[in-house]
Amino acid sequence: MGCAPMAHVLFSKFVKVNPANPTWINRDRFVLSNGHGCVLQYVMWHLIGYNISIDDLKSFRQMGSKTPGHPEANHGIDGIEVSTGPLGQGISNAVGLALAEEHMAATFNRPGYEIINNYTYVILGDGCLQEGVQNEAVALAGHLKLGKLIALYDDNHIQIDGDTSLGFTEDVCMRLEACGWHTIVVGNGDSDLESMEKAIEQAKAVTDKPSLIKIRTTIGFGSKNEGEEKVHGAPLGAEDVANVKTKFGFNKDEHFHVSADVYDFWKAVVAKNTAIETQWKETFAKYSAAYPELAAELNRRISKKLPANFRSLLPTYKPTDSAIATRKLSETVLNKIAESIPELIGGSADLTGSNLTRWKTAKDFQHPSTNLGDYSGRYIRFGVREHGMAAICNGIQAYGGLIPFGATFFNFISYALGAVRLSALSKHQVLYIMTHDSIGLGEDGPTHQPIETLASIRALPNLISLRPADGNEVSGAYAAALENTTRPSVLILTRQNLPHLEGSSLEKTLRGAYVLSDSPNASVCFVASGSEVSLVVDAAKLLAQEGIHSRVVSMPSWELFEEQSHEYKESVFPKGIPVISAEAMSTFGWSKYAHVSLGLDTFGMSAPYQQIYKKVGLVPDVVAEKAKKVIAHYKTAVPEYKLATIL
Amino acid sequence: MGCAPMAHVLFSKFVKVNPANPTWINRDRFVLSNGHGCVLQYVMWHLIGYNISIDDLKSFRQMGSKTPGHPEANHGIDGIEVSTGPLGQGISNAVGLALAEEHMAATFNRPGYEIINNYTYVILGDGCLQEGVQNEAVALAGHLKLGKLIALYDDNHIQIDGDTSLGFTEDVCMRLEACGWHTIVVGNGDSDLESMEKAIEQAKAVTDKPSLIKIRTTIGFGSKNEGEEKVHGAPLGAEDVANVKTKFGFNKDEHFHVSADVYDFWKAVVAKNTAIETQWKETFAKYSAAYPELAAELNRRISKKLPANFRSLLPTYKPTDSAIATRKLSETVLNKIAESIPELIGGSADLTGSNLTRWKTAKDFQHPSTNLGDYSGRYIRFGVREHGMAAICNGIQAYGGLIPFGATFFNFISYALGAVRLSALSKHQVLYIMTHDSIGLGEDGPTHQPIETLASIRALPNLISLRPADGNEVSGAYAAALENTTRPSVLILTRQNLPHLEGSSLEKTLRGAYVLSDSPNASVCFVASGSEVSLVVDAAKLLAQEGIHSRVVSMPSWELFEEQSHEYKESVFPKGIPVISAEAMSTFGWSKYAHVSLGLDTFGMSAPYQQIYKKVGLVPDVVAEKAKKVIAHYKTAVPEYKLATIL
Repeated sequence: MGCAPMAHVLFSKFVKVNPANPTWINRDRFVLSNGHGCVLQYVMWHLIGYNISIDDLKSFRQMGSKTPGHPEANHGIDGIEVSTGPLGQGISNAVGLALAEEHMAATFNRPGYEIINNYTYVILGDGCLQEGVQNEAVALAGHLKLGKLIALYDDNHIQIDGDTSLGFTEDVCMRLEACGWHTIVVGNGDSDLESMEKAIEQAKAVTDKPSLIKIRTTIGFGSKNEGEEKVHGAPLGAEDVANVKTKFGFNKDEHFHVSADVYDFWKAVVAKNTAIETQWKETFAKYSAAYPELAAELNRRISKKLPANFRSLLPTYKPTDSAIATRKLSETVLNKIAESIPELIGGSADLTGSNLTRWKTAKDFQHPSTNLGDYSGRYIRFGVREHGMAAICNGIQAYGGLIPFGATFFNFISYALGAVRLSALSKHQVLYIMTHDSIGLGEDGPTHQPIETLASIRALPNLISLRPADGNEVSGAYAAALENTTRPSVLILTRQNLPHLEGSSLEKTLRGAYVLSDSPNASVCFVASGSEVSLVVDAAKLLAQEGIHSRVVSMPSWELFEEQSHEYKESVFPKGIPVISAEAMSTFGWSKYAHVSLGLDTFGMSAPYQQIYKKVGLVPDVVAEKAKKVIAHYKTAVPEYKLATIL
Repeated sequence: MGCAPMAHVLFSKFVKVNPANPTWINRDRFVLSNGHGCVLQYVMWHLIGYNISIDDLKSFRQMGSKTPGHPEANHGIDGIEVSTGPLGQGISNAVGLALAEEHMAATFNRPGYEIINNYTYVILGDGCLQEGVQNEAVALAGHLKLGKLIALYDDNHIQIDGDTSLGFTEDVCMRLEACGWHTIVVGNGDSDLESMEKAIEQAKAVTDKPSLIKIRTTIGFGSKNEGEEKVHGAPLGAEDVANVKTKFGFNKDEHFHVSADVYDFWKAVVAKNTAIETQWKETFAKYSAAYPELAAELNRRISKKLPANFRSLLPTYKPTDSAIATRKLSETVLNKIAESIPELIGGSADLTGSNLTRWKTAKDFQHPSTNLGDYSGRYIRFGVREHGMAAICNGIQAYGGLIPFGATFFNFISYALGAVRLSALSKHQVLYIMTHDSIGLGEDGPTHQPIETLASIRALPNLISLRPADGNEVSGAYAAALENTTRPSVLILTRQNLPHLEGSSLEKTLRGAYVLSDSPNASVCFVASGSEVSLVVDAAKLLAQEGIHSRVVSMPSWELFEEQSHEYKESVFPKGIPVISAEAMSTFGWSKYAHVSLGLDTFGMSAPYQQIYKKVGLVPDVVAEKAKKVIAHYKTAVPEYKLATIL
């Protein structure tokens, strides 16, 4: 209710969208960062003609409705650009949306053809401004001078616990100005529509800074407890609803009723916006004639089609090729594909030289005034802002026509999980390029060595984890990540060198797990991912010297494996012999596939990595000895899932 | 090298510690927030007499050394207050250390006896200032007016990717002033020791604001590539080391050498500090005579001993007691223990009314000038700052004498995992009170419903997860969380009401899993946690009506269960019958104990919770039907770990 006046101004005067064509690429983007206020958005959506009916409004927060408790992107509700509710995400996504707009404009606009020039509007509340992810995103937006990003701050002085004086007393405008923003204050957001309109006009006029308009509002405006925390999360109650309706001139006995003049008012707005979109279509038709290749390229990218020759760009390797770190192999892939897949855009959280994510011809995405790059650049200097990076990538992907990636050490994806979860939930294709993926990073020690991290990632729905073991699997991992357009992928890469394996291939990688080497009379099956595949290959060789035969399964991706046919799955993990898994991290979850899991369920240590592997028993001779023990006990019929206890 | 001058000033003139008594409660706390610069700390530690020898310095980043790649707290190295390296954490821990100091001072000081009055000093770099967790903590520190927190910002203009102009162009002082900080700028941190000293004096003089001293330094000062990113992470090389030594008047052929006059200089500093500590001991002896109860209480708390009667405070319940949400049962526990365990201090990330974490007699921890509380208050209004909350809790715990807790919705522990991981790694006893723990939260929908979250938490080493099923288990969960002093606990609590179970108890809860109900001829074993225990009890009852007998295992804590004897574990999960698990979230990891796992491996949905449970088949009749199928197939000898495929 407190945000209704600003939403009225924003949608009646500024936001250009055509609900009949909700995916129009040059529509203004709107993000309700305080997603718990989504009733406002659903009502507004109904008024401006999105596919929300009165019945949908009546089934608010009900099973299968188009009006869930928080706005969900890519779940069949038009015009919801990103999922909001988890605080701080929406404004950070909006930074990504605005960044994407500038990049697409710099890439596709031509003299006389401003194909891309939309604004990104945000409404956000106190909660969003307290979240760290927001500060990360806001600081980067200011640095990048994203002038088409306009945020309306619902300054109502109330959060769930009570008055903001309890714990939120910062000077918001001053902080944002320190971060390079332009700020405006509107003293009366309850009824001074004119000042709000003027402020948005002013914000649009400042083109080299994002703008925050701080608007003083009254929460639950017009209700009995207006201005108090009581109205934050609880319904008003029938009596108060009646009072509010009476106060504002509605019929208190009419529920879910919109009068004809209100519908008429919004019909006029929609007509105005539809005309704008029609005009854009005409411009785009002329643009297509003048620049047919550019227009085709834009359409290709919007429709998420990769260039036809894409897979042929990915390198293949032979076992005789030099051992090399998978992060370095990832760099090779990026160098091979970067020019052919111009929709790829991203960077690292200040670990470029370690993540190896900057391809040779890369130009930085920077404001042109900096001499460090320009808006057509595709390499983003995210800074030490992992959570902000992930949230911004979600926004970039939500814009359309782009495949964003973000990079850091694998361990620090933990900083970003709030946003990575939303990549998965909202079906954003984001590539997370995560290097230094285990104790194999060595000397940096336990604060930097992921232990539980891969289990966390594997437990997330609608996400592909990929931990390739060599060059061919790195190519396979990129194929999977780029071809899966409705979910994020996490590429998990080593710091240390790994040999190329006999039997690996891009195609096999796409099955998630496959038999790398086999023996007709195998008495044990090893399964591993990434750097531990060559370890179990070596253990299998030691066993072979003693006449003990084994199968080795490489398993770069649990999620892709689970999508294979039952027959295929059965063919990979044979019946009747024990399965032993190995990963240089937590064994958590491996019981699903293995009878015995090797790894470490404690934190790591600071030392050269070879010494750490030895210390935790992840060396071929120790693994081979353990395998012999397992084989012996398996024959004496220990229940399968209890085998782990014998070691 | 760039920070050496400021560290020299800080440790020679200000930081009062006595390395011979490293746990002295009133020592000044020092945090190297940019933990990758730990060589500086180790060298300084050697000079001021902590247990770091020249040999320790020689074994930097080697196996088992006292000089790992990043400082590790509670790993046998004196004077390391908190683990740093993951950026943004150290400064946020320091906010906790400073908060704890103010609270302990307000609690224990008496007229004429300023037992607690130490400072918290921090050195931090550009990276820390970009991390969102830092902004959260800094904003709260400013709000709380923590005047004894003094941060020295190593403003060297260089981060790993290059010059800070690439992505970090905010006005740091302005941002911190917006957050209520006092700031000072020192233009020459390479050689102007006097200005640095004066700045720290100024910072001490401002008692109602934390201070940031921005000190312009030259990274790799004195080396060939000083001021460039090349010297950020790579060693200088022999030639450059020789040049630097010559430049600063050292013998270039002496390695790991400290001259006698340098040792003498620091001996004098140590003597001065030791005298201060000796004087404090005298004061404390007098204080103990004047206030014997207070002194005894302080000693009890520092030694981490709970009050003797602690367990008797925890409520017990009968099956006939009313059904009630475990978050509400948690509130009851807090009300019972809050007065008796005054070391308990904490709050919620702006969800007090939902987390139910504020006990009846609680007073807010606020600056006395606010009229909202004072520094003796123990309820912290963290604001919507989950990551900052967790990092601050780590700092509070590191101070000593306090058991901090933080609360939010379980789903949003994902925002805080970077800090929760460090609670576990650094052995900080922190209670994470997490409510709304599954799809059972209902209407808020998938953005708020944890699916993967418990798996993430269970995969973390040195942490106890506790998902109690009823009142007695909630009491057990608190017993475990409070009695385990060297690891964090995560309490995972429902929004919705749950019945009290026949057969539960505090003591059984402490075993992690136990047989809740049994039958001598059981043909299936159910295992569940939290809200799903009563579900499987009901399913078992349905089966019993058909003459099918079952065992029901309640499993509130995997970690506590794993610590039981092999015999006990075998007694809980019997051989020869199938085990079926049920949790209203991801099944990830359950293969370790169960042949078939019920739950949901997709995101949730927005609807009344009973409807969601029904939709995903987590209702007694569906579970009972599935159990019958499992029993039938189990008898036909499907391999145990493959049973899941039959459903």
